[in-house]
Amino acid sequence: MRPSQGGQPDPGGDPRGTTQPALLAISDALEKNKADILFRNEIDLEAGRRAGLTPSLLDRLALTDRRVMDMAKGLRDVAAFPDPLADVLDGWDRPNGLKIQKVRVPLGVIAMIYEARPNVTVDATGLCIKSGNAVVLRGGKEAVDSNSILVHVVKDALVKAGLPASSVQFVGTTDRSVIRDLVRLDRFIDLVIPRGGEEMVSAIREMATVPVLSHGRGLCSVFVDREADLEMAERIVLNAKIQRPGVCNAMETLLVDRDIAAEFIPRIVRRLAEKNVTVHGDSETQKRGGGAVTPALPADFDTEFLGLELAMKVVGSTDEAIAHINAHGSHHSDAIVTTNEETARKFLAGVDSAAVFHNVSTRFHDGGELGLGTEMGISTQKLHARGSMGMKELTTTKYLIRGFGQVRE
Amino acid sequence: MRPSQGGQPDPGGDPRGTTQPALLAISDALEKNKADILFRNEIDLEAGRRAGLTPSLLDRLALTDRRVMDMAKGLRDVAAFPDPLADVLDGWDRPNGLKIQKVRVPLGVIAMIYEARPNVTVDATGLCIKSGNAVVLRGGKEAVDSNSILVHVVKDALVKAGLPASSVQFVGTTDRSVIRDLVRLDRFIDLVIPRGGEEMVSAIREMATVPVLSHGRGLCSVFVDREADLEMAERIVLNAKIQRPGVCNAMETLLVDRDIAAEFIPRIVRRLAEKNVTVHGDSETQKRGGGAVTPALPADFDTEFLGLELAMKVVGSTDEAIAHINAHGSHHSDAIVTTNEETARKFLAGVDSAAVFHNVSTRFHDGGELGLGTEMGISTQKLHARGSMGMKELTTTKYLIRGFGQVRE
Repeated sequence: MRPSQGGQPDPGGDPRGTTQPALLAISDALEKNKADILFRNEIDLEAGRRAGLTPSLLDRLALTDRRVMDMAKGLRDVAAFPDPLADVLDGWDRPNGLKIQKVRVPLGVIAMIYEARPNVTVDATGLCIKSGNAVVLRGGKEAVDSNSILVHVVKDALVKAGLPASSVQFVGTTDRSVIRDLVRLDRFIDLVIPRGGEEMVSAIREMATVPVLSHGRGLCSVFVDREADLEMAERIVLNAKIQRPGVCNAMETLLVDRDIAAEFIPRIVRRLAEKNVTVHGDSETQKRGGGAVTPALPADFDTEFLGLELAMKVVGSTDEAIAHINAHGSHHSDAIVTTNEETARKFLAGVDSAAVFHNVSTRFHDGGELGLGTEMGISTQKLHARGSMGMKELTTTKYLIRGFGQVRE
Repeated sequence: MRPSQGGQPDPGGDPRGTTQPALLAISDALEKNKADILFRNEIDLEAGRRAGLTPSLLDRLALTDRRVMDMAKGLRDVAAFPDPLADVLDGWDRPNGLKIQKVRVPLGVIAMIYEARPNVTVDATGLCIKSGNAVVLRGGKEAVDSNSILVHVVKDALVKAGLPASSVQFVGTTDRSVIRDLVRLDRFIDLVIPRGGEEMVSAIREMATVPVLSHGRGLCSVFVDREADLEMAERIVLNAKIQRPGVCNAMETLLVDRDIAAEFIPRIVRRLAEKNVTVHGDSETQKRGGGAVTPALPADFDTEFLGLELAMKVVGSTDEAIAHINAHGSHHSDAIVTTNEETARKFLAGVDSAAVFHNVSTRFHDGGELGLGTEMGISTQKLHARGSMGMKELTTTKYLIRGFGQVRE
């Protein structure tokens, strides 16, 4: 077992790290205890129905056979990843003989504050353990029965695998005031990750003295350049808007180069209308798109619709598209469709976002799709973690300096 | 010129980056304008003397021929470093053909808030420009004349080298309320770096909505293990305490293994007394060290003396030393002296500090000594930057994803 605070990698051993057996044991235990887990989840669901939770909240709360198996599989995927703590990030010698290494170490203790989804209990725990951290879990009160049994199963498996039970802590009280206390324990907690609505996240940011890393708002744009393959542009626009409109990496704003507006706008507006997407267009979009386009208000270009709606605007150049995105977007995920490599390069360099795409749907900004394993969310902050946050974002670094008695003159 | 916000590296070109000519031009201009700079500094010094500034504050405020030359040399050193923005940190392909890169990009706009030392104006500007950032400078009111001329010289050289004058902004007003406004401009400023006393830094942390990176407090310890080379231990202890006692990487606490206490303590106490160092010792240290040791209060082990004083304690094991350091230290720089590699490894792994040393004085935790070039300070935070902060800590990352029309199913 690693020390829970700032341990150093063991250069030998399994490349997947010392926590692999524990993660596999939790995975097995979830499958074995599936019936109990579903039973306890049903208690939460029943209470939720009586309390009048919305269908979408009930859906997020619900566990199914499949969802439990997915949690178990997620843990096996994380277990199979190379140990993030095995990385010596850099190393060099100094002329005076000092040997310097920069190594990756756990942050220490991570607090997760989340809402209805009980799978976060398992997913977050998996990433925290893999990266050598202890985790404090504070789930929503709607899911308290589900989370209790999940934590019980997790801790039981952890202990059997030889890790301390205290590496996973569950805050069972549903009293909301505990959150304020939790996020101010900066002597004991190294990072708070809130997962939930914008209001919850900003309340935590306001209260916290512990550093906060959070999932960012996604106001994503697609720019269709004058040299775009229009068939590809259509496919990417429809995918980015429609495939799952309620998520952060869905497109909210479509920018079209003036040179192709006459050809592309009628076509894309028709296809969007077929899919029941409301288009809020500027005057040129209205002119080209006809009656299917409703007039855009200025605020539409600053709106994360999270549904079958989008804002659309004609721009005169790649520079204008870049300027619009940097001014109105949320620096999350933005795409250009173009066959011109030079234009693409300009866009990739100029757009100040966590991920910038060339001829790819923005929907690919996701830890799994990028090949990082599961993710803790997508950060739009610039410090510490930007974009998809995986296990490496739960670590920090440390300098190790070895010598033979050197002193400074 | 790079875009000031989130620009992408140009893979070709000079390995030292596109800002090298500007940095060299500023360096030359400082040397050329030395007389004017010293003249304006003398105005600040004269006002400071009239206002009754302490000699140490006047010393920090004072520029000399040598100090101006050192600033110019510092810029040349920074210019010679490899371009931090040229790094493609990672790159891989996905089975669906997506090509993914993680590149380093500037943070954007960095605000420096500092006190008397006018050299910060030049040092910070050099690191910010090298890393592709714009900088907003807010120096102390005692140094306003010196900073004005330095900024004038810097901007003039920048513009002649083809960079925009706006890449360096100077807040000339000495009104303190401007600091509060500045650190809340999170829409325009990406990072605030306060450089100054603990009180100033914590006030800024409290007010700021912009992320803050700051130099941390240094309560550093040296542990002399039972298998230490005692001659080496003496040399390291004396260096870490005495060579420059007022700085953050000086030793404040000395821990000695019980097995060597009878031999080492009388010897080191005598040497420390010769150098006028007051030793606050626990009961065992008092017993071994005799009359030269004053009884330690519990608070002495939590005190950053920053002078010719230290706290000293006997411990029974390496584990006890590690536990003491993790509980009482400031997670900055700590050292072990031992000839036992296994004990050293345990200490390096177990001590949760930004830098951990084996048989080396803690005084080496410094950007220059570690070979990072000049530094912005030493962070004891765990997020984003830990330990010596150089030019790379002024950058963030960005995912670039290239494809040929991929959409998500």
